Amino acid sequence: MQHYKDAIEARIDRWCAALPAGGLYAPMAYIMKLPAKRVRPIAALMACELFGGGSDDVLDEALGLELFHNFTLMHDDIMDASPLRRGDPTVHMRWNTNAAILSGDALMVKSYELMGKDARVLALFNRYALEVCEGQQLDMDFEQRSDVGAADYMEMIRLKTAVLLSCALQVGATLADASNVERDRIGRFGEKLGLAFQLRDDLLDAFGDTKETGKQRGGDLRAGKKTWLLIRGLELERTATGSMLRGELTRPPEVRDVVRMSDALEALGVRSEAEELVRRMEDEALAELDKIAVPDERKTPLQQLAARLMHRKA
Amino acid sequence: MQHYKDAIEARIDRWCAALPAGGLYAPMAYIMKLPAKRVRPIAALMACELFGGGSDDVLDEALGLELFHNFTLMHDDIMDASPLRRGDPTVHMRWNTNAAILSGDALMVKSYELMGKDARVLALFNRYALEVCEGQQLDMDFEQRSDVGAADYMEMIRLKTAVLLSCALQVGATLADASNVERDRIGRFGEKLGLAFQLRDDLLDAFGDTKETGKQRGGDLRAGKKTWLLIRGLELERTATGSMLRGELTRPPEVRDVVRMSDALEALGVRSEAEELVRRMEDEALAELDKIAVPDERKTPLQQLAARLMHRKA
Repeated sequence: MQHYKDAIEARIDRWCAALPAGGLYAPMAYIMKLPAKRVRPIAALMACELFGGGSDDVLDEALGLELFHNFTLMHDDIMDASPLRRGDPTVHMRWNTNAAILSGDALMVKSYELMGKDARVLALFNRYALEVCEGQQLDMDFEQRSDVGAADYMEMIRLKTAVLLSCALQVGATLADASNVERDRIGRFGEKLGLAFQLRDDLLDAFGDTKETGKQRGGDLRAGKKTWLLIRGLELERTATGSMLRGELTRPPEVRDVVRMSDALEALGVRSEAEELVRRMEDEALAELDKIAVPDERKTPLQQLAARLMHRKA
Repeated sequence: MQHYKDAIEARIDRWCAALPAGGLYAPMAYIMKLPAKRVRPIAALMACELFGGGSDDVLDEALGLELFHNFTLMHDDIMDASPLRRGDPTVHMRWNTNAAILSGDALMVKSYELMGKDARVLALFNRYALEVCEGQQLDMDFEQRSDVGAADYMEMIRLKTAVLLSCALQVGATLADASNVERDRIGRFGEKLGLAFQLRDDLLDAFGDTKETGKQRGGDLRAGKKTWLLIRGLELERTATGSMLRGELTRPPEVRDVVRMSDALEALGVRSEAEELVRRMEDEALAELDKIAVPDERKTPLQQLAARLMHRKA
């Protein structure tokens, strides 16, 4: 596991070292050097090896995917007015909004420098890059709507989060010349795993330990962010006796009692329901991986990646 | 001339009509349908025909360049806090900043969908897309600096404006399989013409007629924007007797007398100096076009485009 991460980090370090000096590039290097799990590039490397390719065949594209992911973080943090990312100041706080807009734009261009070397990869990337934007748009739309259901939420996180993991795996498969059928299978594995990953992220926000996550606990609840947990909690409250969640949401964010809210989600059974949903999606993801016609031992790294994502604390 | 514009507008209309409904796409269609000169896509078509290609060979890339240009406008308008673009509300005013950030991002992805079909074109585009971002960064940096000289300013507008026109022409030449030498020549033609074009834009801001330009006259002067005119005016004031420009710049923008400032630029000879500089760059541009080894009659459209840009009122 660690040697994939090391290969990515080494490639990122080389990339950062080669950046010109100057205002446009400093925020790029800053965000790329924040501690991160590098799930997408690691997945790209693993998928390439799964189908018999070498990890060097996909290292540039793996980097390109991580650059794109960080471009989305830079711009999403502006849109969400987030002061911190994993405990460190966001780019728009450390510099300013204009710097975060423009360095983000340039970071997207830099990602295309790497994603455009193979026409098949570029076609995949264009499609999923647009879907990521569509997901962020849905996320913002949902904040203005009062009729968002659990299915809407799943579609939003599919676009905003899951498709880029799916894309990373498909890019790896493509560069190893996997068949379209196999590429689609590894893509579905990634999409389901990505959904599980994001739902688990929401669980961590509500129930995780700040020291381990590096984030303030209950940030989403305080912001009234319509996560699956809150949407489902409000649904259950409507059919049960109680209006605690609804009541807290009418209070200003700064006096909202997020510990009481997460306790209520637990009492309503939302936490265990979400955890069950996460497990089911992970099982479905692994079933897709099982179907892929390569020797079983080649599947070990991706199985380990999935297990790591399932049991992660942060 | 008109039939190139018609071809571009028809392609843009088809593109807008095919956009999905929804929040992400409405601002794209809005900005793409604002009245515009379409200089870059027209230049791409003309360059392709100059070297014996058909205009259909480059129509997608011409559209892609216009999409990219409009993405930069959408984000630059946020960064510059501009309420109007050619008389219409900017995207961030009509919607909001987040919508303008995100639709701009997606518009850049859409431009790459079109610029990535030919590997040579993609390599050109990646290079110049990054330079456009570097130019915008310099533009923002200059607002914080007091030591910006006329040469710095020229380098900034070269990156921010001129290189994309150069890129458009080189894309057209590339898709007509022009030699590298000829591609570089048409590129230099574009860069010099682009510089002239932007300087003329600055002249129009200070001295143009609002009814014809669709912009408030003196907007740059009111904002204290360090255009070539203001930089040069301040230089000349330092060596002459007078501190009118400097004095106006110490007053708050809302009470700044921009008519007095533009009169002062005229009296200092800055207007005529700028007009002379514009003419010289246009001559150099046309000299590059002269050198290109194709029958002279094929050069007529690009000569007309240059003439149109030279004598334009808006």
